[in-house]
Amino acid sequence: MSLDTARLQNMANAIRALSMDAVQAANSGHPGMPMGMADVASVLWSNYLKFDPSQPKWADRDRFVLSAGHGSMLIYSLLHLSGYAAPTMDDIRNFRQLGSPCAGHPENFLLEGVECTTGPLGQGLAMAVGMAMAERHLNAVFGDDLVDHRTWVVAGDGCLMEGINHEAIGLAGHLKLGRMVVLWDDNNITIDGATDLSTSEDIKARYAATGWHVVSCDGHDFADIDCALAEAVADDRPSLVACKTVIGKGAPNKQGTSATHGAPLGAEEIAAARAELGWEHEPFVVPDEILADWRATGERGRNAAAEWAGRIASSDQKAEFERRMAGELPHGDAMKNYVASLIAEPKKVATRKASEMALAEINPRLPDTIGGSADLTGSNNTKAGGIDAFTADNYGGRYVYWGIREFGMAAAMNGMALHGGVIPYGGTFLVFTDYARGAIRLSALQQVRAIYVMTHDSIGLGEDGPTHQPVEHLASLRAMPNLLVMRPADVVETAECWEIALKQSDRPSVLALSRQNLPQVRLEDAGENLSARGAYKLKSAGADRKVVIMATGSEVHLALECAEQLEGQGIGVDVVSMVCSELFDEQGDDYRREIIGSDALRVSIEAGTTFGWERYTGIAGLRIGIDRFGASAPAEVLFEKFGFTADQIVPQIMNKLNG
Amino acid sequence: MSLDTARLQNMANAIRALSMDAVQAANSGHPGMPMGMADVASVLWSNYLKFDPSQPKWADRDRFVLSAGHGSMLIYSLLHLSGYAAPTMDDIRNFRQLGSPCAGHPENFLLEGVECTTGPLGQGLAMAVGMAMAERHLNAVFGDDLVDHRTWVVAGDGCLMEGINHEAIGLAGHLKLGRMVVLWDDNNITIDGATDLSTSEDIKARYAATGWHVVSCDGHDFADIDCALAEAVADDRPSLVACKTVIGKGAPNKQGTSATHGAPLGAEEIAAARAELGWEHEPFVVPDEILADWRATGERGRNAAAEWAGRIASSDQKAEFERRMAGELPHGDAMKNYVASLIAEPKKVATRKASEMALAEINPRLPDTIGGSADLTGSNNTKAGGIDAFTADNYGGRYVYWGIREFGMAAAMNGMALHGGVIPYGGTFLVFTDYARGAIRLSALQQVRAIYVMTHDSIGLGEDGPTHQPVEHLASLRAMPNLLVMRPADVVETAECWEIALKQSDRPSVLALSRQNLPQVRLEDAGENLSARGAYKLKSAGADRKVVIMATGSEVHLALECAEQLEGQGIGVDVVSMVCSELFDEQGDDYRREIIGSDALRVSIEAGTTFGWERYTGIAGLRIGIDRFGASAPAEVLFEKFGFTADQIVPQIMNKLNG
Repeated sequence: MSLDTARLQNMANAIRALSMDAVQAANSGHPGMPMGMADVASVLWSNYLKFDPSQPKWADRDRFVLSAGHGSMLIYSLLHLSGYAAPTMDDIRNFRQLGSPCAGHPENFLLEGVECTTGPLGQGLAMAVGMAMAERHLNAVFGDDLVDHRTWVVAGDGCLMEGINHEAIGLAGHLKLGRMVVLWDDNNITIDGATDLSTSEDIKARYAATGWHVVSCDGHDFADIDCALAEAVADDRPSLVACKTVIGKGAPNKQGTSATHGAPLGAEEIAAARAELGWEHEPFVVPDEILADWRATGERGRNAAAEWAGRIASSDQKAEFERRMAGELPHGDAMKNYVASLIAEPKKVATRKASEMALAEINPRLPDTIGGSADLTGSNNTKAGGIDAFTADNYGGRYVYWGIREFGMAAAMNGMALHGGVIPYGGTFLVFTDYARGAIRLSALQQVRAIYVMTHDSIGLGEDGPTHQPVEHLASLRAMPNLLVMRPADVVETAECWEIALKQSDRPSVLALSRQNLPQVRLEDAGENLSARGAYKLKSAGADRKVVIMATGSEVHLALECAEQLEGQGIGVDVVSMVCSELFDEQGDDYRREIIGSDALRVSIEAGTTFGWERYTGIAGLRIGIDRFGASAPAEVLFEKFGFTADQIVPQIMNKLNG
Repeated sequence: MSLDTARLQNMANAIRALSMDAVQAANSGHPGMPMGMADVASVLWSNYLKFDPSQPKWADRDRFVLSAGHGSMLIYSLLHLSGYAAPTMDDIRNFRQLGSPCAGHPENFLLEGVECTTGPLGQGLAMAVGMAMAERHLNAVFGDDLVDHRTWVVAGDGCLMEGINHEAIGLAGHLKLGRMVVLWDDNNITIDGATDLSTSEDIKARYAATGWHVVSCDGHDFADIDCALAEAVADDRPSLVACKTVIGKGAPNKQGTSATHGAPLGAEEIAAARAELGWEHEPFVVPDEILADWRATGERGRNAAAEWAGRIASSDQKAEFERRMAGELPHGDAMKNYVASLIAEPKKVATRKASEMALAEINPRLPDTIGGSADLTGSNNTKAGGIDAFTADNYGGRYVYWGIREFGMAAAMNGMALHGGVIPYGGTFLVFTDYARGAIRLSALQQVRAIYVMTHDSIGLGEDGPTHQPVEHLASLRAMPNLLVMRPADVVETAECWEIALKQSDRPSVLALSRQNLPQVRLEDAGENLSARGAYKLKSAGADRKVVIMATGSEVHLALECAEQLEGQGIGVDVVSMVCSELFDEQGDDYRREIIGSDALRVSIEAGTTFGWERYTGIAGLRIGIDRFGASAPAEVLFEKFGFTADQIVPQIMNKLNG
């Protein structure tokens, strides 16, 4: 590898200039990190990163993750300078303005080359773990010829203070993800000031304790950086490269201080930096020679991509590899046949068990799935269909023992989905979506197909008590944009929900599943996936419709009981299974009106908070729920205590009707 | 210290017997941990823990936190055996049954001696950090005579895998909390099986890297345990005691396996365990001699408590110390006078700035507050009123630089509040409540006064874009029981919200505050805290009331603008500031009817998801909100883009009125 330091210095300074000028133009942003890591990034891009700017989606490219996402001008500079079609210089001029793909933080849905959305600290690093896992898995399945790339991460002190980094590096160390390299921007500065305001940790020792290879370098000495990266690549453990840097490097009066972190440098300091750096060019102007050096960084990758194209053209795995990387599902009638078999022979099982049964159908037929649980395998019923463990010795396995790492799991699932070629699902208790919520939000924002198998979905889990009983979680997840929250009522709906979740190529799903057994309520073959409508009539009123009862999951059979009692008194009742309110909201007006009606008393029954149900019941309707924390007792005792019995609900409905 | 191992063995076996029998009777629960840690707990209780069973709330007691809360029978056994009034043996017989204080997981609100609710893993450890911080602070304020105790934690592998433990130990190490000791139940087992399924970490090396003292012991060798605890006590760093244990110790066929973790042992194995342990007593029977030994463990503490009572009786700080430990606020008119001064001279400031102004009034007058921010001090405006940093060199300080540790901060705030004597507040961006949500839930469940200062509360934060713009967060927090979510509209309401939050002795508050400046909308002195009503009329209709516009925070002045336009067209409009919907829901029917009305078109305006607003607008009303993720651009551009201008809203209201 060549190491022309004068050339690299100019290249790095181009990043510095673009970063400080773009932040200044926007009057908002973070110049410190891009200026501090410009030298490291220049070496990485020039000598290590495998990429082809003309094919940003090339499957075997290295993945580059800017975990310290506030330093977004670093990646925008890198993508522009090295020749990606976007961002253009105009996009960079419009940094942080409406419509520019150069958003405040990098967004995967705005720019190719931005592998994931970052900004919420620590999550980029954790997503990179998922990418590295997907890479090793696909390597095991498709071989070195098709899959053989690295995952690079730039992380700051903030990323390394967040708890999720502990979960992420624990996984990476345990799974020996040696093709993952974290470049730590070791600048001793956070927003509040010096890192010694809040931490005294020996980060290198911590990483070493977690099975990582650790190497240090002077982040402004090109030869030293190059050596460190070479050592990282050579080691078969995941590597932490501690890059000692000066934040805002090049701004003579502010560098090394938190003043450069998150605010424009100001015209005066920018002028001083230009002098300091010897950068005499106008804002947003990069001389041709320097630009040519940058454009040349893609050369290695272009050659590699061309060779790879030759290999895949002659591979007998081409079609399957391309199907998987495109995220397309294979065709088949398996799910239809499975549902027919359930209709033929009804079953009373917990929906977590129903999920396991569905997975036993799915996993053998859909090699894309990689499942797992955050140490609740036997409770979440996530291991099914004969899949083996994914381990350091068997990357071909498809079941991940995530450990007690809900947040790390969810973020890694995002990384897997973003990498492509795999469809991740993972389980914990529904209440612990709280632990993973930051990553579930990034699933939704990044528009990825991550499937959350969330069991023990109400007070119905019983004795574990209020810490483990979700009350507000269905509502709080329904409030999140672009997320499907599905709560199936029985074994059939559970199968349907799995089918729906797998088909969502651009949004995540949460399956909320019961611990307790539920009777099968779908006893006829509808010839279609009724759950896909979001809500549907499970039972139509026998007499004139006076009441519509809407329920979800474990309360649907209770709604049917209530309806039976009411019909016995001559009151016509529709029962609606509201499997997924987001999908229901997407139906046409006519369908929604037909299902919910407006002429009848509308009642909701759900063993969770009533918050949000007014959307369907109206204020005048009746909402049966639990607007307090639960308690520790056997499930049936709790359902009785909190009013979830027909004998307690029917009189309330009668009162409303007569009121 | 005496070390009668035969006596200790019997004492430990009493824990084992109670634990396995109670789990068996409940047919649910976790016998493995209590049986594994029985020996360690017996030494701790006998020779180290400072407690007085007759005065469970004695201020200077050691705090004992069972972070591995699933092993709840350990603490129930310890409290019962050592002579606390509760739990009784009947309570233990009713383990996990409705009404028993022996819930599935330990609940601070059910039993004295249970210092905090645990079960969500890792949080007990993090709360203990807050307790240890509160202890050192109060020690600095009131001296050794009144405050001089330790914080003990029992943590399992699960606690140490969760990301929050990284944040917690990073803080404890940095702050040199040498009076904190973590007893790690090092049993190599998690629910899914052996720990090597999911981790390869050298935990001791990691703790050492984070500034902790580490010592190991054989968790079944009383002398070795005693040595290790003595060494931990002697060291001036926080200590990790790695206790090598056998999970389910004493159950001869199942011990050492995950089979003992979370299920009853079964009658046969319990019989075998009785034989193995030489425990010939009936279930729930502890022989008098063993019970007497247990009762004696409180002797040291009783003596210490008596001496302490003598010291405080003669202390000139008695009244203030007791006021603070009781959580009572001092009396005074400062807040009233401050509000009057605002009315006299209106100000246009961001509510985050208004919060800083309120804190500048509060902090000098209320020595109980300990503030902080997760590395966003200058953004959250949390440092005010001349408070100094809380550091290892100055525990008397009242401002915590929490670092980039939102979850750890929130959990430690819970620990501080539970310790008593201090009132914690802490800040981050509202969007990052997602990171801290597990602890915010425990604030609510545990009924503690923790105050979350959550700034940058909407798309109004502008350029940082969707990762930083809360959309669903107000709704998702409103869905949580026992939490006040307050979104003040101006400088006056912000002061009122602070007053409300400080007065909530049994529930937490979230203050959602703007980044951007907001005009003062409260221009008259109402003579009362209007925000305490939850919602109130800021403006009454000039003409016949046809419209009620409800808004919160930064949208209240927009609501006033809309009203002005509508009134200009002869349409009477009430404007309601819905500061806190939870408080509003607690008002009487008449007041609520008066505010919301039912005769008028009801409109909500909030720069967040519309989810949940149907409760107040009805289905037929109009909800102005943002039901998608935001975007990166200056705030005013975003408000325009997403429809938050009077010119875009008024026509929608007119259409509805004419529709």
